[in-house]
Order: sequence, then structure tokens, then C-alpha cells
Amino acid sequence: MPAANCFYYGMTFSITILGNASAMPTKNRFPTSQVLNVHERLFLIDCGEGTQMQLRRCGISILKLNAIFISHLHGDHLFGLFGLLSTMSMLGRKGDFPIYAPIGLKNILDDHLKYFGEGMTFTPIVHGINTNKSELIYENRAITVHTIPLRHRVPCAGFLFREKTPQLNVHKHFIVKHALSICDIVQLKNGDDVTLPDGEIVTSEAATYLPYAPRSYAFCSDTAFSKKVIAQVQNVDLLYHETTYQNDRVALAHETMHATAAEAATVAKEALVKKLLIGHFSSRYSNDHGFLAEAQSVFPNTAIAKEKEIFEVVLEKAVE
Amino acid sequence: MPAANCFYYGMTFSITILGNASAMPTKNRFPTSQVLNVHERLFLIDCGEGTQMQLRRCGISILKLNAIFISHLHGDHLFGLFGLLSTMSMLGRKGDFPIYAPIGLKNILDDHLKYFGEGMTFTPIVHGINTNKSELIYENRAITVHTIPLRHRVPCAGFLFREKTPQLNVHKHFIVKHALSICDIVQLKNGDDVTLPDGEIVTSEAATYLPYAPRSYAFCSDTAFSKKVIAQVQNVDLLYHETTYQNDRVALAHETMHATAAEAATVAKEALVKKLLIGHFSSRYSNDHGFLAEAQSVFPNTAIAKEKEIFEVVLEKAVE
Repeated sequence: MPAANCFYYGMTFSITILGNASAMPTKNRFPTSQVLNVHERLFLIDCGEGTQMQLRRCGISILKLNAIFISHLHGDHLFGLFGLLSTMSMLGRKGDFPIYAPIGLKNILDDHLKYFGEGMTFTPIVHGINTNKSELIYENRAITVHTIPLRHRVPCAGFLFREKTPQLNVHKHFIVKHALSICDIVQLKNGDDVTLPDGEIVTSEAATYLPYAPRSYAFCSDTAFSKKVIAQVQNVDLLYHETTYQNDRVALAHETMHATAAEAATVAKEALVKKLLIGHFSSRYSNDHGFLAEAQSVFPNTAIAKEKEIFEVVLEKAVE
Repeated sequence: MPAANCFYYGMTFSITILGNASAMPTKNRFPTSQVLNVHERLFLIDCGEGTQMQLRRCGISILKLNAIFISHLHGDHLFGLFGLLSTMSMLGRKGDFPIYAPIGLKNILDDHLKYFGEGMTFTPIVHGINTNKSELIYENRAITVHTIPLRHRVPCAGFLFREKTPQLNVHKHFIVKHALSICDIVQLKNGDDVTLPDGEIVTSEAATYLPYAPRSYAFCSDTAFSKKVIAQVQNVDLLYHETTYQNDRVALAHETMHATAAEAATVAKEALVKKLLIGHFSSRYSNDHGFLAEAQSVFPNTAIAKEKEIFEVVLEKAVE
């Protein structure tokens, strides 16, 4: 996944769709799985059957995955995990490997590894997540990941990935005009004001700017329409929201705690997100057109989360 | 799977390849799984990850499967079972569903269904097989299935599917010449001789013929070269024999208890089989050419078990 649209090398922020089916995969569609690339660090989100094959088809190295996030313990979001872990071991992965998932995954995986864990070269560590409230569950130099409590038939959480605010840059003309030293520049970048030899004060606020706006991605898998979700995904750059049904099956959607295309789009609209991706379409529909039309009638900037497509959130250069 | 080459409608005997990779699936190749069609009854052989997607891609109805045969309990032959059973339930399958597999599968499946068995519409029944000796494990009107003990790192069995000998037909000219009654015909078909009113005896041997030669398919998954296998698959019409490596990695093949292409072809040659299919190629090889060349140098009538291809054993009409 090259950072094709990024002007800063290595600053990719993109999602690759590996699968977008709902409970039953179809001839052309694998169950849910996505890879988020943040600055060339890869995070797998959900792991439906066939994830490892799709990773290979998309040219994504299985050994480059940094962590896995599982939204809930239904098979169509999970059954690819067994083969993927097995392959990671055959490829010689070492050390601990974190998996963030509803608490029950630990027992499932412990039972599985009783039979298939012999000779594993690494240790999968399940970090149980609380699906009832939003919590910070992961953090590295580049991002934070918070859970998004969802409304489904079993404990279920989405994930909100937010790029951290980058360090401030100092305007070049300030550096030249005031002959700022390295020490002055560091001080200004850290938010502190600088007093020049002649007593003049250069404020950090005036002298600095954000090099780019931090980006965000929210993954909302398997959920009924939820106002709490709207509150949590306010202003994200890219929102993935499932829509298993269209309005013609709204009763079935509510009964099974799924969202219609119009509901997913309403979340996007009310949360003022920049772009909406939809997927997890029921196999009852023979094509995707109806989903897209219904969603776009509410929120025009909607796209279908097509398999093997990469959706990049482009870095927006701040004005110097 | 229409009976394209069969002159008797509904008399298909064919194998459809769903996956042919070895332990690690590749970009273009799913792990092992095949469907045997015997007279429009379908039997799944092994069930690597992605089997349900491949069934759909091949246009094979998941609900038409009659039984599953699993050769051994390595993930690449098994991890598609969880999703497949889940989908069969969503499609509303009823009653018992037989799975023939090494004994350990029962515990694996019991543990799995603790977590994912709620609301299952049918009951998978695991019939544990003894992998140390050949046994009749399945029989219906059309076929018998015997196990083929294999030599692998874990208990492992192949499967020998034999069409039953069809009922005899009576030559038309005997019927005309002797003005045979329905009763006489039935008697001759059953192998009994008929005494005509004038005292002449019409023997069943003279009056009847086999309408077609019973067909056979042997599936030999994951095994080191074995003379016992040669003895058991004598004269089969179609033999699938794994070949994970070529001669350049013969030591690795023996260490991991796999066969080279030449060894697979030697089994075919010494067993006097009609045709050999090879698959389960290691991902260390970038293409299949070497496997085919090596096998054909020993046994020319070898083909690669390509995904989504159907290999039919054509019914050979007996001469009247």
C-alpha cells in the first residue's frame, strides 16, 4: 500500500477492504475484514473467513500486521483468525501479538489452541474490551484507538482510530526574521514563547502552525442505528458504517439489530463526517445499487466499501 | 455440475477442485477441498478455509452436500468447517449431518459449538474413523467409501470412493429370440438361469452384460510415499495424490511426511491407475510447471488439480 496521495512519505492513512459481506459470504464477497494503514503500520479490523487469502491478494504482508481488532464474536467477523494465526506461526512470527476483542475471545482462542497451538512461534494475547463504554484501548506514537459501543445482538464495539496531533512547525519567515536558534525553535514547537536578546517576545501561537490536520477513521460494524454513535464519530474524516438492509426490510433490520442504508447515512450526516463507506450487505440483495442510492439520498459523499479497494484519507497540508 | 459427458442422465461421477494449496494458501490458491459428485449426490472431501466461498463460486449448492470427509486434523484441511456449518444453519438445514474424520474432530467441534452452536438448525454428527486400517465407513445405493491409511505426522486417512456394480442388463436379441417374459428378465438380471417352456436353458452369463464399468476415485491427502497405498488404489480410474514438493526438496518432503511429484506419480504408475491428479503444492514454488513435468516423466497421464476445474470419470458404455 504505497502512500500514493501523501505528500509526506510514510504518512499514509488508508483503509483496504478485504471483505464486506454480511453473515453469508457470496460468490464475489468475503466476510468482513479491513486493514488500516497508519504511517505504514498495519492494523487488521475484524477477521472473517478468508482474510489471509485476501491479505495476499492485496499484496499486504501478513507479518507486517501490528495488532488485530475484533468488533464482536460472530463467526463472519472472526473465523479467519484461526487460519491467519496458523500462517503467522508458519511464517515465524515471534513474541507477543495483541488482539483486542470482546472478552469471550480469550476462552475461544484458548480452546482452539489446545488443538492447534502446538509449536506456535508466537503468543497471541487477547485484550478483552468493554463494549459498554468508550475506552482508550491502544496507543502508539501515531494514533489512539478508542472503542465505540455499538447496539447488536451480542456485545459489539466499533473502533475509532485518531491520528495524534503532530508537533507544531515554525513558520520559516519567523525563523529568518528573528534569526531564531535551534533552541528557540524547539521551545516554540513545544508551545512555549521565546524572549529574544532585545527583549521582544515571539509567541508560539504566532510563530507556529500545525503541519497537517490529524486524520480519523471510525469503523462501525454490525449495529442498529445509534445516536450515541453519532456523538462519538463527530467530524471523522472517514466513517465505515454497516448497512445490512435497505429500507424495504427495515423491520428485519431492527429485529436483527442492523442498520439500513438510510440509517447509516443519517449517522454520517448528523455526525458531519467527511465521507461514508458502506458494506456488510445482506446476500438477499442481488446487487449494491440500491444501497448506494438509498445512502446517497441522505448523505451524498457515500461510497461502497468494495473489496480490494483502498480508501485513503489524504493529508491536508496546513497553510504556512 | 451437470453430467456433461455422461450418456446416462444423472450418472455423473466427477470431482470439482475447490482448493489445492498446501499449508499456506497463496494469492491464487485456497487450501484443500474438493467435491465429489456421484449420481448428483455431493460429498465434500476436506474443508480448508474458504470452502464455502469456493462452493458458491463453483455454483454448488451448500445444502446439497450429503456428507463431509476430513482426512486429518491440520488446519489447512479443516478451518473452513466452522464457517460452512454456520452457513448451513443459516440456510436452514435440518436433521443430522454426517462428518467422517479422525476421532479428535468430535472434541474440536464440541468446543467450537459451545461458543457458536446456539440456534443451530441441524446436528453435525462426527463419525470417528480409524486411520490405521482400511474400513468401510460409508455406503449408499450408489457407492462405498473405504478409508486409505496414510503416512503423515498426525493420524491421516485418504478415501476410496467406489461406484457399486450396477445391475446386469439383458441383451435385447436374447429377449427377442427367446420371447423372454418380464419374469424371465428379472431372473436373468439377478444372475439366475431361466428354463424355457421347451426345456432350453438360457444362462444369465450368456444373456446379460454389465451396462457400464463401475468407477472409482481415490483421494490421498498429505502422505509420505506408501506401498500400502499402492496396494489399495490398484486400478482406480482417478487418483488424487498430494505432492507438496519436487525432487529438489526430497529431504524436506520426507522430514515433513509429504510426497514428491515423482513419488506421487510412482504410486499412480505402480497401482495402474487410469489418471493422476496432483495438488497441495508448497508455496515455496512460484508455479506448477515443475510438479507437472516431474510427475509426467514417471506417469504421463497426470493433470494438475486446478481450482474450479471439474474432472469427470466418463461412464464407459458396455458393448451389447
